[in-house]
Amino acid sequence: MGARQDAGAPVKAGDLPTPTLLADAGVLERNVATMAASRPGRALRPHVKAFKCTSLAAELRRAGHTTFCCATTREVEGMVAAGLGDDLLLANEVVDATRLAALGAHVTAGRARITVAVDSGETIAAASAAGITEVLVDVDVGMPRCGCQPDEAGSIADAARKAGLHVRGVMGYEGHMMHEADRDTRVAGVTRSMAILESARNQVGGDVVSGGGTGSFDCNDTVTELQAGSYVLMDGDYARLGLPFEEGLVVSGTVVSVGTGGHAVLDAGLKALAMDSGPPGLQGSGKVLFCADEHTTVVGGSWTVGDRVGLRPAHIDPTISKHEQIHLVDDITSGGDAEVVETWPVDLRGW
Amino acid sequence: MGARQDAGAPVKAGDLPTPTLLADAGVLERNVATMAASRPGRALRPHVKAFKCTSLAAELRRAGHTTFCCATTREVEGMVAAGLGDDLLLANEVVDATRLAALGAHVTAGRARITVAVDSGETIAAASAAGITEVLVDVDVGMPRCGCQPDEAGSIADAARKAGLHVRGVMGYEGHMMHEADRDTRVAGVTRSMAILESARNQVGGDVVSGGGTGSFDCNDTVTELQAGSYVLMDGDYARLGLPFEEGLVVSGTVVSVGTGGHAVLDAGLKALAMDSGPPGLQGSGKVLFCADEHTTVVGGSWTVGDRVGLRPAHIDPTISKHEQIHLVDDITSGGDAEVVETWPVDLRGW
Repeated sequence: MGARQDAGAPVKAGDLPTPTLLADAGVLERNVATMAASRPGRALRPHVKAFKCTSLAAELRRAGHTTFCCATTREVEGMVAAGLGDDLLLANEVVDATRLAALGAHVTAGRARITVAVDSGETIAAASAAGITEVLVDVDVGMPRCGCQPDEAGSIADAARKAGLHVRGVMGYEGHMMHEADRDTRVAGVTRSMAILESARNQVGGDVVSGGGTGSFDCNDTVTELQAGSYVLMDGDYARLGLPFEEGLVVSGTVVSVGTGGHAVLDAGLKALAMDSGPPGLQGSGKVLFCADEHTTVVGGSWTVGDRVGLRPAHIDPTISKHEQIHLVDDITSGGDAEVVETWPVDLRGW
Repeated sequence: MGARQDAGAPVKAGDLPTPTLLADAGVLERNVATMAASRPGRALRPHVKAFKCTSLAAELRRAGHTTFCCATTREVEGMVAAGLGDDLLLANEVVDATRLAALGAHVTAGRARITVAVDSGETIAAASAAGITEVLVDVDVGMPRCGCQPDEAGSIADAARKAGLHVRGVMGYEGHMMHEADRDTRVAGVTRSMAILESARNQVGGDVVSGGGTGSFDCNDTVTELQAGSYVLMDGDYARLGLPFEEGLVVSGTVVSVGTGGHAVLDAGLKALAMDSGPPGLQGSGKVLFCADEHTTVVGGSWTVGDRVGLRPAHIDPTISKHEQIHLVDDITSGGDAEVVETWPVDLRGW
């Protein structure tokens, strides 16, 4: 999987060309252990969309999680190829007949167990035609994204069974509550959404109730499996919630210019960093003034041309998906002196 | 370069897996012609960071432009490999000795002409040590990014010459004015910035004054070469400026779910679309409600599961860099019925 570094001259983060993606090995280990203690084994269905990396998924399997959640067919394909296909949930509706048929072929050949979300006659027909055999009924629990209306869940399940599909249960994502900073509001919202999912489950049957995420890991008592992913390295945005997970990911840039006004310019910009949840935070003193395509201007600190500086992304999922590799380092706070202990390809990115 | 489709059964946009990046062949041709009429040949130094695609750069060469601007060493390497290295400007400071030396080796071997931006003693030393022979002095013309102070430009040029480098002239980017919607304000700001660049040029010497972009293409009379790139397919954000370039790029998604409330969900989200300049616009009727990692929820229109829907990105540069391919189609407004006339790899993306 990853290229564990040989003994001998260690590779330092400062030896890597920038921009580069660094993850703290200790933070990852602690976050994984904290979640596994709360949601052991199959009580967690880690969402690989957060990190798009089979090497990281393999670490989660070593921590006891054998079931995984995917957002795209490419993620499913990659997980099967990596031997991580014991029980994969494609937690999205898909109507691409070619791609679904490729997943159906894995099921038919016994290479993987693949369950697909459905919420309509069209998605049931597509799954059935593709050779998919197992589905979850996706239910709208208050966020206007995918999912049938709760009172339609029973008839969707009936239609799926009529099409020859085994209905394992229900799925519902309370995403509109996931980043709510006020804990009472978040808990109340999650509880409301999960009451909706519970009522849908009573119509649908099955033993799987799948949903939730990092933001509801400690207050969603309804799901039989939590679909969390970002907790492994934590979003800057999630960090506002006071959860017991640490931020462990930075995009590292090199200072290429220092202005007389005291600003410095890094060679890591918004092509290397997701901006949908706001600009990144800055490791160490100072702050980010703005991000451009290939640059970030920082102010309020003291820098020299050649320094390595870490930017903490507000949203890790779309940040990781911009990079080809994640470098695990021994101590992310050490900047260019951090030792690279392993390098993992971001092999599930793209479409 | 690109894979021109054979005669026979045409590939339709609707045959491509989604999300997918579609560009309008006619719009591209018209935008290129409009700019070439205003800034012919070497009066334009097209910026490949906007599209990161050597096949598109080759189209610009066919339109008469033989000099190109790059933001990263990987872009320079790719342009050299594609035979487009007649006169490349790396318009960024770089202090990565290994990467610069690889560029220097191209210069030494006569494979390419490569000019590098410098703004400090460190960047001069790095360029000189790497075997780079030609530089531009990068000047801060009012945007706090790279570039020396204007009154330092002469001494930077002297230092470069002392280090054995040929100083071709100056560079300065008035990026803070590039997206200013009010034309009078924009023209006044560009004029102020270019007066600064002109005074720096008087200290530095040389015959190159490089700068500008799509937003100043019709009001920057100072530069000898304009560094524009986005004009080829136009940002949604730039479109506010009333420039004579058309928007010609969409991220196409498939409707995978339709809610009873009338919203529809596409399988194209913020991992396929840059969000730094705001959410995308929607082709056709309706509007975007929000973008999630792998989904976009749209409202106010009428959609059926399986429909192809185009999202117009607010910022094309970081949108294109998320994709592996650009598909040129005959008419981007035709949705899934558009015919694919050519497919180009986005071969300059990444680091």
